[in-house]
Amino acid sequence: MLLHLSTWSEIEQFLARSRTIVVPIGSNEQHGPTGLLGTDWLCPEIIAREAEKSADILVGPTFNIGMAQHHLGFPGTISLRPSTFIAAIGDWTRSLAAHGFEKILFLNGHGGNVSSIDAAFSELYAEASFARRRAGFALKLCNWWDLEGVGELAREQFPTGHGTHATPSEIAITQWAFPDSIKSADYAPPIAGNGPIRDALDFRARFPDGRIGSDPGQATREKGRALVELAAQSLVRELELFGREPMPS
Amino acid sequence: MLLHLSTWSEIEQFLARSRTIVVPIGSNEQHGPTGLLGTDWLCPEIIAREAEKSADILVGPTFNIGMAQHHLGFPGTISLRPSTFIAAIGDWTRSLAAHGFEKILFLNGHGGNVSSIDAAFSELYAEASFARRRAGFALKLCNWWDLEGVGELAREQFPTGHGTHATPSEIAITQWAFPDSIKSADYAPPIAGNGPIRDALDFRARFPDGRIGSDPGQATREKGRALVELAAQSLVRELELFGREPMPS
Amino acid sequence: MLLHLSTWSEIEQFLARSRTIVVPIGSNEQHGPTGLLGTDWLCPEIIAREAEKSADILVGPTFNIGMAQHHLGFPGTISLRPSTFIAAIGDWTRSLAAHGFEKILFLNGHGGNVSSIDAAFSELYAEASFARRRAGFALKLCNWWDLEGVGELAREQFPTGHGTHATPSEIAITQWAFPDSIKSADYAPPIAGNGPIRDALDFRARFPDGRIGSDPGQATREKGRALVELAAQSLVRELELFGREPMPS
Amino acid sequence: MLLHLSTWSEIEQFLARSRTIVVPIGSNEQHGPTGLLGTDWLCPEIIAREAEKSADILVGPTFNIGMAQHHLGFPGTISLRPSTFIAAIGDWTRSLAAHGFEKILFLNGHGGNVSSIDAAFSELYAEASFARRRAGFALKLCNWWDLEGVGELAREQFPTGHGTHATPSEIAITQWAFPDSIKSADYAPPIAGNGPIRDALDFRARFPDGRIGSDPGQATREKGRALVELAAQSLVRELELFGREPMPS
Amino acid sequence: MLLHLSTWSEIEQFLARSRTIVVPIGSNEQHGPTGLLGTDWLCPEIIAREAEKSADILVGPTFNIGMAQHHLGFPGTISLRPSTFIAAIGDWTRSLAAHGFEKILFLNGHGGNVSSIDAAFSELYAEASFARRRAGFALKLCNWWDLEGVGELAREQFPTGHGTHATPSEIAITQWAFPDSIKSADYAPPIAGNGPIRDALDFRARFPDGRIGSDPGQATREKGRALVELAAQSLVRELELFGREPMPS
Amino acid sequence: MLLHLSTWSEIEQFLARSRTIVVPIGSNEQHGPTGLLGTDWLCPEIIAREAEKSADILVGPTFNIGMAQHHLGFPGTISLRPSTFIAAIGDWTRSLAAHGFEKILFLNGHGGNVSSIDAAFSELYAEASFARRRAGFALKLCNWWDLEGVGELAREQFPTGHGTHATPSEIAITQWAFPDSIKSADYAPPIAGNGPIRDALDFRARFPDGRIGSDPGQATREKGRALVELAAQSLVRELELFGREPMPS
Repeated sequence: MLLHLSTWSEIEQFLARSRTIVVPIGSNEQHGPTGLLGTDWLCPEIIAREAEKSADILVGPTFNIGMAQHHLGFPGTISLRPSTFIAAIGDWTRSLAAHGFEKILFLNGHGGNVSSIDAAFSELYAEASFARRRAGFALKLCNWWDLEGVGELAREQFPTGHGTHATPSEIAITQWAFPDSIKSADYAPPIAGNGPIRDALDFRARFPDGRIGSDPGQATREKGRALVELAAQSLVRELELFGREPMPS
Repeated sequence: MLLHLSTWSEIEQFLARSRTIVVPIGSNEQHGPTGLLGTDWLCPEIIAREAEKSADILVGPTFNIGMAQHHLGFPGTISLRPSTFIAAIGDWTRSLAAHGFEKILFLNGHGGNVSSIDAAFSELYAEASFARRRAGFALKLCNWWDLEGVGELAREQFPTGHGTHATPSEIAITQWAFPDSIKSADYAPPIAGNGPIRDALDFRARFPDGRIGSDPGQATREKGRALVELAAQSLVRELELFGREPMPS
Repeated sequence: MLLHLSTWSEIEQFLARSRTIVVPIGSNEQHGPTGLLGTDWLCPEIIAREAEKSADILVGPTFNIGMAQHHLGFPGTISLRPSTFIAAIGDWTRSLAAHGFEKILFLNGHGGNVSSIDAAFSELYAEASFARRRAGFALKLCNWWDLEGVGELAREQFPTGHGTHATPSEIAITQWAFPDSIKSADYAPPIAGNGPIRDALDFRARFPDGRIGSDPGQATREKGRALVELAAQSLVRELELFGREPMPS
Repeated sequence: MLLHLSTWSEIEQFLARSRTIVVPIGSNEQHGPTGLLGTDWLCPEIIAREAEKSADILVGPTFNIGMAQHHLGFPGTISLRPSTFIAAIGDWTRSLAAHGFEKILFLNGHGGNVSSIDAAFSELYAEASFARRRAGFALKLCNWWDLEGVGELAREQFPTGHGTHATPSEIAITQWAFPDSIKSADYAPPIAGNGPIRDALDFRARFPDGRIGSDPGQATREKGRALVELAAQSLVRELELFGREPMPS
Repeated sequence: MLLHLSTWSEIEQFLARSRTIVVPIGSNEQHGPTGLLGTDWLCPEIIAREAEKSADILVGPTFNIGMAQHHLGFPGTISLRPSTFIAAIGDWTRSLAAHGFEKILFLNGHGGNVSSIDAAFSELYAEASFARRRAGFALKLCNWWDLEGVGELAREQFPTGHGTHATPSEIAITQWAFPDSIKSADYAPPIAGNGPIRDALDFRARFPDGRIGSDPGQATREKGRALVELAAQSLVRELELFGREPMPS
Repeated sequence: MLLHLSTWSEIEQFLARSRTIVVPIGSNEQHGPTGLLGTDWLCPEIIAREAEKSADILVGPTFNIGMAQHHLGFPGTISLRPSTFIAAIGDWTRSLAAHGFEKILFLNGHGGNVSSIDAAFSELYAEASFARRRAGFALKLCNWWDLEGVGELAREQFPTGHGTHATPSEIAITQWAFPDSIKSADYAPPIAGNGPIRDALDFRARFPDGRIGSDPGQATREKGRALVELAAQSLVRELELFGREPMPS
């Protein structure tokens, strides 16, 4: 069930049978010479919507702009500062919790979001903790590449040159979903270098074409299909386990 | 050109020929018994993407959560507070301006966003004004129903019962775009009442099924198609005029 | 009754018979070659205090600095950023609500304040909406020129050259109230031009003497008197209606 | 010269001969059984405007709501939180500094404001200090009762029962300025008690009628006149000295 | 009892017999040619820990960075802005109050902190005051030099050249506690000058070696010992009185 | 070199030979039945000060309160919210950068801090990235248990029951440094359980005595000594490498 294509009374009915929701979250940022700017929010959206086709889960709208300050040296990147990010996740969560959602899983597509999402969770829990009351909801961050089996499959598909940004696995997923938007380029060097991540100009100086440690040229639509199918199945299980997890009384 | 399906170097090339971008912005909120929760962000997204098919314009990712605190009494609504909204539009704009975009048009789908968007613009301009320097960018808010000719067409299509929330025109647009998600209901009364808008519980007490002054039952896919086509043409012209507008030196 | 010239026990007594208060709100900003910098906060203050002379209404202190970032290119303008403005209206409202005021009408004298005031109201209501409780108060924004009959009178008095900033109607009101501070100038051109409003330097380039679309030379004290008297009467009725309006249980 | 009754070009001319401005600042809060709610912002406004009658000084609009959280237990009190207060003084100061004012004296009428004003000054200076640049302006806080000779006169006039809140000296000043708003009451006890200041309910429990250590019954219009005249003269000297003070290069 | 060297169950036991805690608070900032950068947080820490040796009091961790923007022109100074300071004291206090502490005394070592601490207290109390509830805790600011008898002793020890920054009394205290870190210098002039405090570059221009009105050369370890012993005894009494003070019901 | 026991001119001299500083950072929070509340800020402080004894490194004051909202159910815990934490690290960093420090290493003692520290770094870098300028400093987060060789040693010392909170390794370090504050208790069960971390009441229900997965009973002073010595050596090397790392031009 896609929340944005449902009516409020359909959501009311869903809440009668489940208190769990998955929210795709990512970033809109450069992904090297051939990666789509939307890669990091498209991947979790693609996976969650694939999962929804065969299971009674609820998929929220996609939180599509993340913490990508280090990519601002490349045109098209849009970033929130961590403080804005924390405020926004706070309002999304408070909205969902007000309706009675108790288990909110953020399916994440951008490594650079992890700290800010985790800080946002703590900011939300702290409201309850300072007031000596229960939060009433449980939050979970899950990167799509950490879904059961997905990392293993990616390592099999791309034993070398996977890297950490503009990876062949994420490129493959968007190729599968957007066959009309497949780009090509000569990668030089074939596998990009590594290094620390700091401000945007420092980043662009270290990573001239935007890739980190990756060779996106290995991506294929077929590999993307396999990744999505596996990730979608694992997501359904993850949501089921999360939904069943008891909250201490 | 869809920003999220482009690479950073494609955007770099676009910037060489244009400094204008359109960002669809809306809200995820209840839309009465039959309206989709995503209606207000889907409408500007649908119109902008339709416009992009036949013109060399750049469409940014959709800002899909807006200021909808008054709808929080209905499940599925997600809202930002105005202060969060202002911070987020600020970061989107600062990101785009850092790349050299000078004309940023927010194509809006939610009346409740207007004040917060306008306040966000002033917050951004104030940074320059306090520092006695030029902002370097011009911001424009444009509601899709204010695009040239669109209001006239909607009044022709729906001479009575258009109302201001869960209107037949916005429902028609989503029906055209999402034919598999058309819902039906008995509306009682056929045309919903009006009244002031305050907090969420007050809103739900005044507007029990979520509509304000509207009869969404008049919506048809065909009317939606006509609205989208006209709005898309007008948007292209609007962007062209905005792009050509000089900035005082 | 003027709140600032009352004691706390007089306000306690007032609260026993009414829960309604009017707060004049404006801006301190340039008003063209002859308009007073205080015009926008003086006008609602003048009208509210005139109304108070003949009716049992309570007039709060004047909120005299508003959102005027675009006027900062002209000496004497003082502006709050929207975020500061929202915080300040928030604290005023929370203070009044803590005493039991349930209907708070902001009588506004500055068009540039409208969005920020409206955003401030939403920020306040959102506290209640996220917590699923009633706000306990109703807020109303009323521009003095929108009081019943006032717009009509102004259009009669100034059929051309009214414009939207440094208008002859607001100048006339301050002339009536401050006859010793009437200024004169040669206006060139007689009726000022129009255009978009952005940052302060852009504004000053577009509107060199500060006026927007207006010919303040048409203002007279006598016209000011007529405007104030009519506005004061309409304000009393507006407050009475607002005070009687039920809040859904 | 009163800023709010001047035009922008008159202020431009004033800036050619002086870079100094005085801003009356106070609070709107309970002042015991007979004190006006506006006492703390009226006193500095009365003194500054009296001073302006005979000297070429510039008086800004009055900052009329201060830090009065402890008085919120009494109807009519309006308070800003310190964080809001700091933001607002910040925007006032940035506005004035943008026009070229270099010496900004806040003439204060409320002891409870002192810490928040001082913190606001530090917040403003810190922007420059962190950036390793000069602030470009000097800020000064001056309580009206600390103007030269004023404390001595008040101690002569009221050797006992002056106290620290709802003092006979401040009541006397408002009696002189607003003879139609003089109130009377039986004070029990004649001189109010003292104690620590904490939250509003604690305050009301300790100080049941709102006074702290004072006997306002000693106030007379004549004493008020003497205080205002002396304070006005001292303010003119204070501004002259402040204006002449060099800023290290 | 030192909180940081205790277990949570030891604190739980302490709370059964007392609801009072002392928190040393200071600043890390330049202290002239010979003063330690830590002087202002070391002094209250030294005094509180000395007091703890002979009395059943609880000493919290030291809040070691304060409001020192004006000292940022000298290497080694670390400062919080007032707004950050207020937020941090807020979280410390909310944490302690959540455990049941009702009397929190901040033993302060930096004059420049006073306003920000006081503003922080008001920010905390305001939460209760706006909500018309009791805060549940009492906060007290006590500068170590204002502890009973300490000012008198310092004036006896240093009849001239005590000054207000890099004073011989604070230097003496750190000499007693850190005999291995005693520094020496030729002071020119022997007693430093005075002046207003503004931004950091202005400060460094006025006070070239960092001292304000002081001759730290008079400090000795022996004088430091006497100051610490007296201050420690007075602190114990101060805490006892504070702890016994009733809170109005 | 300990910054807090140095003068400003000693720091000026240090800056002439190095632009690198280490700041111990931790948390003040419950550490099970026998762990000190200060454990997490004491450990990095102990290690950094040990390292300083034999190398020319500069150790800043300890940032002693961290993100510990989940421990607030246990008396003595003091926590910052992530937003406060980000603001405070921001001001510390801006202060140090203003003096010319270019490499700032935060030696961290609390796993719960990692996300908030990382978010704080991004918030700082974003200021530069949005402005399209270089930050001018590089920030590094290093947990003491991740220093070279330390994790291996801890796993050797405690092959089972190390866990993740109130671990025998951190307890051992504080035992070595504070032999007078060694506590004992019967641990039941010997090795504590694991589980997700959410709000404070949820945490206390899941982890009744505060431990997570650990058996602190294995700690000895001798093991602590070995850990500190190794960590201190590794820290010196880490700082040297970090200091030598070039920043792209």
